[in-house]
Amino acid sequence: MVSIIPPWLLNKINGIVRTAKHRDGHSSISTTRSPRMYGKAAIALVFVVLLVISYSISIGTVDLRSYFFPLLQSPAGAPPLCATNPPLRVYMYDLPRRFNVGMLDRRSSDQTPVTSRTWPPWPKNSGLKRQHSVEYWMMGSLLYEGGGEEREVVRVLDPEMADAFFVPFFSSLSFNTHGHNMTDPKTRIDRQLQIGLLEYLRESKYWKRHGGRDHVIPMTHPNAFRFLRAELNASIQVVVDFGRYPRIMSNLSKDVVAPYVHVVDSFTDDYLSDPFESRTTLLFFRGRTFRKDEGIVRVKLAKILAGYDDVHYERSIATGGNIKASSLGMRSSKFCLHPAGDTPSSCRLFDAIVSHCVPVIVSDQIELPFEDEIDYSQFSLFFSFKEALEPGFMVDQLRKFPKEKWVEMWRQLKNISRHFEFHYPPKKEDAVDMLWRQVKHKLPGVKLAVHRSQRLKVPDWWRRRR
Amino acid sequence: MVSIIPPWLLNKINGIVRTAKHRDGHSSISTTRSPRMYGKAAIALVFVVLLVISYSISIGTVDLRSYFFPLLQSPAGAPPLCATNPPLRVYMYDLPRRFNVGMLDRRSSDQTPVTSRTWPPWPKNSGLKRQHSVEYWMMGSLLYEGGGEEREVVRVLDPEMADAFFVPFFSSLSFNTHGHNMTDPKTRIDRQLQIGLLEYLRESKYWKRHGGRDHVIPMTHPNAFRFLRAELNASIQVVVDFGRYPRIMSNLSKDVVAPYVHVVDSFTDDYLSDPFESRTTLLFFRGRTFRKDEGIVRVKLAKILAGYDDVHYERSIATGGNIKASSLGMRSSKFCLHPAGDTPSSCRLFDAIVSHCVPVIVSDQIELPFEDEIDYSQFSLFFSFKEALEPGFMVDQLRKFPKEKWVEMWRQLKNISRHFEFHYPPKKEDAVDMLWRQVKHKLPGVKLAVHRSQRLKVPDWWRRRR
Repeated sequence: MVSIIPPWLLNKINGIVRTAKHRDGHSSISTTRSPRMYGKAAIALVFVVLLVISYSISIGTVDLRSYFFPLLQSPAGAPPLCATNPPLRVYMYDLPRRFNVGMLDRRSSDQTPVTSRTWPPWPKNSGLKRQHSVEYWMMGSLLYEGGGEEREVVRVLDPEMADAFFVPFFSSLSFNTHGHNMTDPKTRIDRQLQIGLLEYLRESKYWKRHGGRDHVIPMTHPNAFRFLRAELNASIQVVVDFGRYPRIMSNLSKDVVAPYVHVVDSFTDDYLSDPFESRTTLLFFRGRTFRKDEGIVRVKLAKILAGYDDVHYERSIATGGNIKASSLGMRSSKFCLHPAGDTPSSCRLFDAIVSHCVPVIVSDQIELPFEDEIDYSQFSLFFSFKEALEPGFMVDQLRKFPKEKWVEMWRQLKNISRHFEFHYPPKKEDAVDMLWRQVKHKLPGVKLAVHRSQRLKVPDWWRRRR
Repeated sequence: MVSIIPPWLLNKINGIVRTAKHRDGHSSISTTRSPRMYGKAAIALVFVVLLVISYSISIGTVDLRSYFFPLLQSPAGAPPLCATNPPLRVYMYDLPRRFNVGMLDRRSSDQTPVTSRTWPPWPKNSGLKRQHSVEYWMMGSLLYEGGGEEREVVRVLDPEMADAFFVPFFSSLSFNTHGHNMTDPKTRIDRQLQIGLLEYLRESKYWKRHGGRDHVIPMTHPNAFRFLRAELNASIQVVVDFGRYPRIMSNLSKDVVAPYVHVVDSFTDDYLSDPFESRTTLLFFRGRTFRKDEGIVRVKLAKILAGYDDVHYERSIATGGNIKASSLGMRSSKFCLHPAGDTPSSCRLFDAIVSHCVPVIVSDQIELPFEDEIDYSQFSLFFSFKEALEPGFMVDQLRKFPKEKWVEMWRQLKNISRHFEFHYPPKKEDAVDMLWRQVKHKLPGVKLAVHRSQRLKVPDWWRRRR
């Protein structure tokens, strides 16, 4: 039986027992009911307890964590999504600060590597667009060194141990910071960073090994890495949708769809006894109404939705005060409209989710985060452009939507909204943890591609099938 | 601190300590160095040990099983492939015997449902083609009720609990049994079974729910389910390759590639000190040389490979005696040739693997089982048709292949051959367990497709991208 106890543990047990004997100060061989007997009983007890536990684990009836860390379980009411073990092992490149946190405070001349202790908060009121900050939260989730909840990812410092590689370049912040539009001369700084990153990666043994296929690169702004995006197309890109890219660039099978980081405050004390009746507005929208591409639907919707007492459709731009007003509006509305904007998705959808306002999505080409785990139809309504622009149709559908069904959706929203929150320190099953799980789901496909590419003699026979 | 110890455990500890005190027979409050102190020390010790263990588990540095059950780990030298938890929950349809085991012994009129206890062995010398029996082993793996090793799959009897659904129709055996070729009149029985199965499935709530997307159907013979295969195309099909099917039917992203079930005996006592020197034949092939499609390469190879002393290329058909001869031939050869046959893959590759004979694969369109986990280039050589048919080239390459490299490949073969074995009772990481893991890897894609299809307003916007 001794052989199943690891030696270090055995030594420790003996050590503790020895110390206790020593303090005792006299021989312990006095009688058969001596203190030594208790020492033996203690060891036996430890053995029995460990045996019971290890057996229970081995036959799968006991998950130790659920005994010792009951708070690690999902909150009541939220069914746990499929937890997966073991965690993803990720190596993070050690990029110079100018590629990431250096952009958060450009006046600082600090050149020391950022650590868990010196990780800067996301600057408030800085004009930096929080909705594109997924890259910042992903980097933070790897940098964080505290203990706590078991998450989907662990950082490994030895690249040989890694399942995947994270490239901590703030590509969205670089676009948003260096030049305020596509033609601003300062945008050359963004371009230089992209060139610099490529040079850096192309010298890495691990990038070269599989052409970057097992590398994860956040690119949530539609213009992120716009000069050289095609060069990173083999990697797992973290994007918000695919609306702007051609078919050969980015796709659902290899890339990961992230939520925008919500900008309104989360409705954490949403405990009204009758949320349906207390939310007096039927349908709410505040935002820009003149948008490119499919966003043209917004002007049309403005016309279609005019003249209804219970519909709030307001043209507005994002400022501190307006965000506050949007938050209040969403919290007092049953349904929140999410029309396509410049791209199929926008931050507004996730603002609605954390406000527990049932999203009404009018965006034919939208892709949704974590959709292999989350069924959005359980808490959202979808209308095609055609349906939404049919006079009276959508409002009519919403007005006659059954109260019980709406309350059920609202309950679902309260359950799933935690998957759309970004935290530092990171939390189990928050948005970033969910993103790492998405990466994990992509890895079998990555490994298959890597192995096949190493041995295929006719690389494209597949595409040439009849 | 007490709060993190589960109450049942606390009671047990107190109980044991109480019992010990009782046996002691006298008061334990005699001195400060009394037995009671040892009892307390014992409890403290248990606490400390449990805390250390639970903390180690929580931060992911310790896997308890590896300490207490070292034998559950992979055999020495075989790096464990990525184990995944929790196991896949599979519901198996309760099909009448004529769809599966009824075909194994057609004289039997037994109509009782087959159970773990009555599971029939695969009939030896019956003329039933063992290489197409993946369907039989998959069914057995779900039916098996004994305990034992933790596997990738558990059978659930409540379909509401299932991640996936298994359809235990022996589609390959049905083709092989009912009529011996495509035009035999008896093939109508096969057709009737296919029609019957479809009728059965179409009445199932769980089939209808997602159009069969989360259903797993073995179809390893290229002619399995040949009359109605397109009707089951949404499901996860278990196939051996995609050579015969058009592009719209079956593909790597949704289907699972299975190995053929090997027919030669596994080389379990392959312990020769110098396998390289003791295997005197350089390259070995026995089999049919006239085959359809790309199999035409076999006749050409016969010409190219004639006249080499160290190459054995023999025309032969599969009979008991010939299989024995093939087995001996493979075990005494360094390399075993796997040319394309009627289809890109064949049983021969897996016979070579379990004979630890380094496969030489000449089949441009072959797809390989478990290739997201197994890198075949570590123990196989690949030649294109063009390379293989260049006079002298292949034999030259094999002759000058370094001994150390060959021995390393042979060692790899010994490690991975267990993934190509079919067992009843099933074993951890045997071929069927690996197949269930493949199914698990497909599930995120299945769920994504299910959720998207429920809410997409323009189902094919994706394909219509620029």
